[in-house]
Amino acid sequence: MHEKIKSTLEKIGPLDLSAMKRVQERLDQLTKPQGSLGRLEDLAVQLGGIRGEYFPPGTRKKVVIMAADHGVTQEGVSAFPSEVTAQMVANFVNGGAAINVLTRQGGIEVRIVDIGVASDLDLQEVTSARVRPGTANFAREKAMSRQDAEKAVLTGIDIAREEIASGVQVLATGEMGIGNTTASSAVMAALTGYPPSMVVGRGTGLEDEKLAQKISIVEKALDLHKPDPKDPLDVLSKVGGLEIAGLAGLILGSAANRCPVVIDGFISTIAALVAVKMNPLVLNYLVPSHLSQEPGHNLLLEYMELKPYLNLNMRLGEGTGAALAMHVLEASALVLQEMATFGEAGVSEKGESAAVEDLPCASRDHKFE
Amino acid sequence: MHEKIKSTLEKIGPLDLSAMKRVQERLDQLTKPQGSLGRLEDLAVQLGGIRGEYFPPGTRKKVVIMAADHGVTQEGVSAFPSEVTAQMVANFVNGGAAINVLTRQGGIEVRIVDIGVASDLDLQEVTSARVRPGTANFAREKAMSRQDAEKAVLTGIDIAREEIASGVQVLATGEMGIGNTTASSAVMAALTGYPPSMVVGRGTGLEDEKLAQKISIVEKALDLHKPDPKDPLDVLSKVGGLEIAGLAGLILGSAANRCPVVIDGFISTIAALVAVKMNPLVLNYLVPSHLSQEPGHNLLLEYMELKPYLNLNMRLGEGTGAALAMHVLEASALVLQEMATFGEAGVSEKGESAAVEDLPCASRDHKFE
Repeated sequence: MHEKIKSTLEKIGPLDLSAMKRVQERLDQLTKPQGSLGRLEDLAVQLGGIRGEYFPPGTRKKVVIMAADHGVTQEGVSAFPSEVTAQMVANFVNGGAAINVLTRQGGIEVRIVDIGVASDLDLQEVTSARVRPGTANFAREKAMSRQDAEKAVLTGIDIAREEIASGVQVLATGEMGIGNTTASSAVMAALTGYPPSMVVGRGTGLEDEKLAQKISIVEKALDLHKPDPKDPLDVLSKVGGLEIAGLAGLILGSAANRCPVVIDGFISTIAALVAVKMNPLVLNYLVPSHLSQEPGHNLLLEYMELKPYLNLNMRLGEGTGAALAMHVLEASALVLQEMATFGEAGVSEKGESAAVEDLPCASRDHKFE
Repeated sequence: MHEKIKSTLEKIGPLDLSAMKRVQERLDQLTKPQGSLGRLEDLAVQLGGIRGEYFPPGTRKKVVIMAADHGVTQEGVSAFPSEVTAQMVANFVNGGAAINVLTRQGGIEVRIVDIGVASDLDLQEVTSARVRPGTANFAREKAMSRQDAEKAVLTGIDIAREEIASGVQVLATGEMGIGNTTASSAVMAALTGYPPSMVVGRGTGLEDEKLAQKISIVEKALDLHKPDPKDPLDVLSKVGGLEIAGLAGLILGSAANRCPVVIDGFISTIAALVAVKMNPLVLNYLVPSHLSQEPGHNLLLEYMELKPYLNLNMRLGEGTGAALAMHVLEASALVLQEMATFGEAGVSEKGESAAVEDLPCASRDHKFE
C-alpha cells in the first residue's frame, strides 16, 4: 500500500470523549426535557467528539463531487448513455443541476472533480485529476490497475486535506458517473458477502429485463475476478470505479483531519464502506444523510449501523441528500449555541440531576476488523 | 355545530389535478432521471395541487404555537410541573427555546397564542385568546364544555384565515402544554379505537411506574366519559385539550384557504386527526414532518397514511420538527423553479416520453368517512 495511504489510516483516531461529555452536559441544561431533541443531540455530541470542542454553527461546508465513467456501461447496465456523465458535469458548472439548487439553498460550496471522465472536458471550474479516462469494462477485465485505484484514493485524501487546510469544516460526498450503481453493487457484494440479487437495483431507471441482466453481470464479474473481501483496494481495482475510490479517499482524509463528512446515497455509502474497511474508526466521522430508493442502500446502512436522517426516497446522487442533511447538522450546532438554559430562562426543571454517563454516541471502535 | 365551523368544513376542496399534472410534466423535463428526487417531487406536486399553480420558493412561512394547560396534570401524568407551560411561553417570547433557534435558522415566523394557559401571562407578544384557564381534570370531569371546544376550534380557524390574508403561504403547527401527551393519547384512543396501552408514551420523560399510571388514567377517563368516536367535538370536549382543539381549527382553516400546513409531532398530528375526522379532504393539505419518539405517533401516521420526512427521534413539540421540515418544503419549490431542463442543459435523455398518468400524489378522498 502507498505510504501516504498508510500514514493517513494511522492518523485516524477515536472521538474525544471528554468533549462529548461537555456537549452532553450543556445539552442537558437547555430548556427542553433531557434528550427530547433526539438525534439532533446525538449529532451535536458526535460533532463535538470529532472536533474536540463544541461544533459551532456557520462553519464552511462543501460538497465534493467526483465524476468518472464506467466501462461496464458497454454491457447496457444503465438507462442513460455514458456521455451524460460529461454533460452533467457541464450542468454542474452552469448551476442547473439539483445539487446546485440544494447547495445554494443551504449555503454550501461545491467542488467538481474529474477523476476519470472518459470524454474531453474543457471546463476550468472542474478540478482536473483524471486518473484514467473511465474504467475498463469489468465484465471482461479488471476495472483498473491497483496503482490506479491507489492513485484515485490518494487524490481524494489530498483534496480533503487541501479543503480542510483552506478552512472548510464539513465535507460531503457527491458523485456523477453513468454506470456507477453497477460498480457500487459489485463492490458491496464483494465486501459484505451479500448476493448481487439483494444489492443490485434499477439505478437511474432500468426495466425488469435489464435489471436481471445487471444482476447477472455483477455475479459473473465477481466469479471472474474473485476480489479479496479483506483487501478493499483489490476490490476497487477489480470491480470498482474511480469516483468510488476518490470518495473513499476523501472520507479517509476527512477522518484523518478530524472533519465530519456527510455521506450521500448508495454510491457514497459504498465509498464510506471501503474507507471503513480500511480503518473502522472512520465510522466515527461519518454523518449519514438520507435513505436512497436503491435497495442496496438500506442493507448497507444497516450493515454499518448508520441511520439516515431523511427519508425522501431519492435516488439521484450528486450529493443531493447530503446537501439537504447539512440543514440538520447546522441545526444541531445552532441548538447548542443559541438555546437558553433552565437557569437563564427561569424555567422549572424536572428535578433530576443531569445524567451524563450514557452517552448516546460513544466512540465506535474496531468492530469491522 | 357552530355555523362557521360548518362553513369552513364545506369550503375544503380536493387538490387541483390539472395543476398537479403541470408540475409533474415540468419535473419530468428537469435534468435528472424521472422520479429520482423521490418525495421532493411528490411534495412539489402536492403543493401545486394545493395552490393551483407552481408553488414558488421564498414564500412566507409561520409556525403557530398554541399554549394551554391541562387539569389532568393533577393526576401526576407529567414529569414537569404545570407552571412550565407559562414559563416556556415566556422563553418563546425571549427567543431562547428550541423552536426559536430552528425558526430563525429557517427564516420562519412564529406566532404564540395563549388559548388556555392557567396562570397569568403579561406578554404583549402573545396573542391572548384564552378560552378558559386550562382544562378541567378529565380523570374526574369533562375537560371542557362542547361550546368551549368549538370556541377553541374557531380561534384556530380565525388565526389561519388572518395569517393567510396577511400573506403567510405556509403554516405549521406548534404547541406547548404540560400534560398534553395524556390528552392527545386519550383523543387518539377515542377516535381510532387503539387501546391506550399502545398509544400512551413517556411524554417529557416519565418512568415505568408513572407510565403505567398514565395508561390507567386514560383508560378510566374513556370508560367514564364514553366519547363518541363519530363526533370529534365530543371527544375534544371530554378528553381533549384547548391547544389540540385550536390546532385542529388552524388546520381546518389552512385547508379551507388552500394553504399547506406542516404538522409537527404527536400532539400536532392528533390535532390533524381531529380535523381529518371532521373532513377527510383535509388530508390533501397536510405536510408531515418528523417521526416522534412518542409511540402513538408512528401508529397515528400510519393510520392516516402520512410518511414523515425526518427521522430524528425528537419528542419536544413546540413545532420543532415542522420547522426543520420547512427546509424540505422549500427545497421542493426551489428544484421546480431553478433546475435546468434537458433541453436547456444539452443533456441526453433516457429516450422515453414523460409519463404523466401515474401521479404520485393523487387527490385523496373520503377514505375516513
